[in-house]
Amino acid sequence: MTPRKKKQTKAPRDSRRAPLPRIAIECVTPELDAGRFPVKRVVGDDFRVSADIFKDGHDLITARIRYRAMSETEWRYAPLAYDFNTDRWSGGFPLDQIGRWSYTVEAWTDSFRTWRSEVDKKLGAGQDVSSELVEGALHLEAAARRVKFGDARTALRKTATHLRDVDVHYSERAAAALAPATLALAEEHFRPRDLTSYHRELAVQVDREAARFAAWYEMFPRSCGVDGCHGTFADASESLPRLAELGFDVIYLPPIHPIGTTNRKGRNNALNADADDPGSPWAIGSAFGGHDAVDPRLGSIDDFDDFVARARILGMEIALDYALQCSPDHPWLRQHPDWFFVRPDGTLKYAENPPKKYQDIYPLNFWCDDRENLWAACRDIVLFWIGHGVTTFRVDNPHTKPFAFWEWMIADVQQRYPDAIFLAEAFTRPKRMKHLAKLGFTQSYTHFTWKNTTWELRTFMEEYASEETLEYYRGNLFANTPDILHEYLVRGGRSAFRARLLLAATLSPIYGIYSGFELCENVPVREGSEEYLDSEKYQIRARQCDSAENINADIAALNTIRRENRSLQLYDNLAFGASDNDQILLFAKHSPGNDILVVVNVDPHNTQESTVYVPLESFGIGNDEYYRVHDLLTGAHFTWRGSANYVRLDPRIQPGHLFRVER
Amino acid sequence: MTPRKKKQTKAPRDSRRAPLPRIAIECVTPELDAGRFPVKRVVGDDFRVSADIFKDGHDLITARIRYRAMSETEWRYAPLAYDFNTDRWSGGFPLDQIGRWSYTVEAWTDSFRTWRSEVDKKLGAGQDVSSELVEGALHLEAAARRVKFGDARTALRKTATHLRDVDVHYSERAAAALAPATLALAEEHFRPRDLTSYHRELAVQVDREAARFAAWYEMFPRSCGVDGCHGTFADASESLPRLAELGFDVIYLPPIHPIGTTNRKGRNNALNADADDPGSPWAIGSAFGGHDAVDPRLGSIDDFDDFVARARILGMEIALDYALQCSPDHPWLRQHPDWFFVRPDGTLKYAENPPKKYQDIYPLNFWCDDRENLWAACRDIVLFWIGHGVTTFRVDNPHTKPFAFWEWMIADVQQRYPDAIFLAEAFTRPKRMKHLAKLGFTQSYTHFTWKNTTWELRTFMEEYASEETLEYYRGNLFANTPDILHEYLVRGGRSAFRARLLLAATLSPIYGIYSGFELCENVPVREGSEEYLDSEKYQIRARQCDSAENINADIAALNTIRRENRSLQLYDNLAFGASDNDQILLFAKHSPGNDILVVVNVDPHNTQESTVYVPLESFGIGNDEYYRVHDLLTGAHFTWRGSANYVRLDPRIQPGHLFRVER
Repeated sequence: MTPRKKKQTKAPRDSRRAPLPRIAIECVTPELDAGRFPVKRVVGDDFRVSADIFKDGHDLITARIRYRAMSETEWRYAPLAYDFNTDRWSGGFPLDQIGRWSYTVEAWTDSFRTWRSEVDKKLGAGQDVSSELVEGALHLEAAARRVKFGDARTALRKTATHLRDVDVHYSERAAAALAPATLALAEEHFRPRDLTSYHRELAVQVDREAARFAAWYEMFPRSCGVDGCHGTFADASESLPRLAELGFDVIYLPPIHPIGTTNRKGRNNALNADADDPGSPWAIGSAFGGHDAVDPRLGSIDDFDDFVARARILGMEIALDYALQCSPDHPWLRQHPDWFFVRPDGTLKYAENPPKKYQDIYPLNFWCDDRENLWAACRDIVLFWIGHGVTTFRVDNPHTKPFAFWEWMIADVQQRYPDAIFLAEAFTRPKRMKHLAKLGFTQSYTHFTWKNTTWELRTFMEEYASEETLEYYRGNLFANTPDILHEYLVRGGRSAFRARLLLAATLSPIYGIYSGFELCENVPVREGSEEYLDSEKYQIRARQCDSAENINADIAALNTIRRENRSLQLYDNLAFGASDNDQILLFAKHSPGNDILVVVNVDPHNTQESTVYVPLESFGIGNDEYYRVHDLLTGAHFTWRGSANYVRLDPRIQPGHLFRVER
Repeated sequence: MTPRKKKQTKAPRDSRRAPLPRIAIECVTPELDAGRFPVKRVVGDDFRVSADIFKDGHDLITARIRYRAMSETEWRYAPLAYDFNTDRWSGGFPLDQIGRWSYTVEAWTDSFRTWRSEVDKKLGAGQDVSSELVEGALHLEAAARRVKFGDARTALRKTATHLRDVDVHYSERAAAALAPATLALAEEHFRPRDLTSYHRELAVQVDREAARFAAWYEMFPRSCGVDGCHGTFADASESLPRLAELGFDVIYLPPIHPIGTTNRKGRNNALNADADDPGSPWAIGSAFGGHDAVDPRLGSIDDFDDFVARARILGMEIALDYALQCSPDHPWLRQHPDWFFVRPDGTLKYAENPPKKYQDIYPLNFWCDDRENLWAACRDIVLFWIGHGVTTFRVDNPHTKPFAFWEWMIADVQQRYPDAIFLAEAFTRPKRMKHLAKLGFTQSYTHFTWKNTTWELRTFMEEYASEETLEYYRGNLFANTPDILHEYLVRGGRSAFRARLLLAATLSPIYGIYSGFELCENVPVREGSEEYLDSEKYQIRARQCDSAENINADIAALNTIRRENRSLQLYDNLAFGASDNDQILLFAKHSPGNDILVVVNVDPHNTQESTVYVPLESFGIGNDEYYRVHDLLTGAHFTWRGSANYVRLDPRIQPGHLFRVER
């Protein structure tokens, strides 16, 4: 064998800056992608941290969490407790403010406690511990030197002197050494010689409660006008009391900015608009301004401020659309043509997804030479609207803009305004959707609208219920959107709307509907299309909010029940149960003192019955135990026993049960 | 809301050194603890690498593995192929030399291929692509600038000119643009503008074949003397041909160094030794020297060299014990008293695990002030023996020495001698054992000796068969050791020895026995003890290697079968099957073209019969298919069908079947 290198390297250096690890600290949880991204929590959560911690030999270890909020300069500490069975250390601390927090784990050899334990064992075996007592005295004297004066110093020195007193029998001296008071003093003034930190500092983003629990309602303010006229913010304000009564928390508006006229789309996405067509709000920008202006037909910025204030008085907040694209008439095309894509002939490029063309929209070139100013300008749009009382943004198509932009922009905004919430509207492949959530999006749209069978619903929800995904992905279950009218609603009618509402409002603590859902609007532009006929994206839609078909009572009831039941406000507590009938879905949501059980008939046409199997382990109910289930929607009570129980649901009467389990 | 910070931060900088990530590269496998530790392979393996790779928008991506062996200065590249169904990229490269390798993943936007795909789609939709063709010309002209001269440059420029020729109809020019030859040329001379590397470089430790496949035999050379006299290396040499015939690959010797006389242990661990007691070889060091000396009663260092050479001629290698501890007479106690633990009275401390005392052994203080010299001296012991032809070390009790020492020492030695192999003898809690393997130990002892029921065996093997653990942990299944004579062997006698041998030799490609196992020695020092009576640790044990009880035929057959069947040489191919009788264990080992099926009766006393269920998916055999199983131990053939088949095993005749599946 020929050696590769002959150089006699020295043993590795050990320094305060880069210490050799004395103690192994592994498998710290939570930790997302090796600390590359923060995990997410909401304020008030108890933050649980665990780790595998061990070292060579037989010494005893002590370990703790080191943590602080972004706003704090001093570290705080929380103890970690050792579980012998799993060889794991666990602890926690309360997240008492919003914003970014740092945390890590550290451990050290507890040499006084190790010494004490060994002396104890030797005494038990009848061994002479005189030499050990002198070592103990050295420990105590070192501790005493750390206490500059006072009773503790006196007590430590006194005990040390006693331990050295050869005139006293070692067993008597040992009793003093092993006294709990000695341990307490020694521990209090102990300085670890091998304090070892986990090699990464981790982060948790702590959001306000609404990041995890909110009912959303999407509305076009321009449809709120009287007699089919273009509505204003003042008109839209008139709708707010009704929405507050229905129990919504967030009113989300599609873009409210001036709309381009060049290549404006007409009714039902016609290539040419008529003179009175209002155009798509997503074709942002005109002579009246761009992303920081309001469409003059909606009113002035002051009118908008009034609208936001009115919502706040009613306990709601306004969310805006953040769509980073421009109509051909957006001021940026003239001011910053270099922020766009340029053809060889010097003209700017409209949006395309070959062979489709979107001539009313121009995409931004996020990697242009003037990138830094462009990104700052995009960020400043958010800051501008935060200045007008908006802290929730529904982000349009984030998967077509650079990941690096989102990671920077969201962190930059949240560092200034930690209550800012960003909802990612990315309907794309799951790994990209998850990555956007990791990058910082507070919430994300999901594929919920396309999951209508029990198998689809369960598989879909369970994909997002893995321990890792729960750390960063919060799915906002919209039951419809201006772009998605699912065939299930088209064919199923009112019963389908009721079932989907019940599912959205209970499967996730964050859900939403888009105007018209409460009226069961379900006419597609053509057979098989997910677009609405006479889509509100291209025209004004006056509505009768109390039409016969409405499901307002369901909405109001569900939103009330959600507010009254903690289990429906949490994201990580979903557990499915089995059912003998594949038209019936059963799931449980548990939190201390609040056990919820939801049973839904997903067949909007026929009565379905089944034996269902309650996941009793979620509730801690025994297999033979009786318990009462109380339907919070109808007031009905049933007595159930064990896991297997019978249900029968007629969709014309009720789409499902929303039970509270009572004992 | 009050903003936390008002400073208008700029958009993030983007530089060649710290580029903003353009492309997401996630979930790279294999990767151990976020790249903190290398994964392990053996030379000749095809190294498979996978990753999730994606970016915003619709651009096409190309990705590759970047890798090199430690000895190489230039990077090599291997392509990654995209699987649309799993959204995952995979590729591989051959590991053609031993040592440490680096690898990572990189990706870039393939802008020419993206352009080409869009032109193709637009043409398909009948769109005019004149403007796109000019963009294509720009792509080709940029590529041409990268080719300083020659045919490629001419061809690229010619095609570019053609693409710009407005006198030719765009569809004709597009045909030239889309030609495969144009794509090939453009790709060859393409320079990515957004080459993005995964943010970690990962490592794989490539060992020689014997790291994963070897049969070990532990022997005390001092027991090889004639007529019960103290044996020498020359005497031990006489045993080597027999061991080579039995098919062993590694002959492991307990420490061969001078043995201390102070507090020397006598027969059966007596506190006081008689004058002629040889002492425990683990009490290392005397006036004759320390860890780099040989016990003069075994011979000289030249005799040792001869012994190593003799083994090599027979196709075997010698492994030494690496036990970092000293007898009271070791030269280091005088030369370097500061390398040991010191009592308050200035005397050095012997080893203790309170209340147990080990007065014949002094532990080293690895964190002493002279740590760097101590660690280097410990490392130099290994280098010394490598200089004498030993490249395999069985490391005694590594879990009582610092983790940081092992990580440094093993890497340092393997950087010089990449064929060095270290076996960790740590019988401790699983997380510590796994951590030592992560730190660099090539192989590890396991709790195999204590796993004797089918349930224990399966649970135990499956704990080490997780995808992550297989990346770094190689269990060397010793059937006995000088410290471990399990009750199963004591009570089960010869049939138990045969069953355990069959299990050890087939469950793992690395296994071992300690002398006497082949003679079914099973008398404990006292009822219930795992220590041997008249343990060879404290006295010489002359043996009759062909005594009536011997199981030499089993050993020779198994080692031959192992060499002839690739499946028994691999570590990550174990799959258990069910059995109706819990005394019968069934498992499969598969590799291309070599399907092995092992059935073992773990009841050494009674004939057992059962229906067993072959894991057919391991072999790709259909559920109704007939196949032949050929018992390589007995030569018997059976025709089996599907998964469920019948077996009957009389332990007095054979402990189990070792089938090759033939079709």
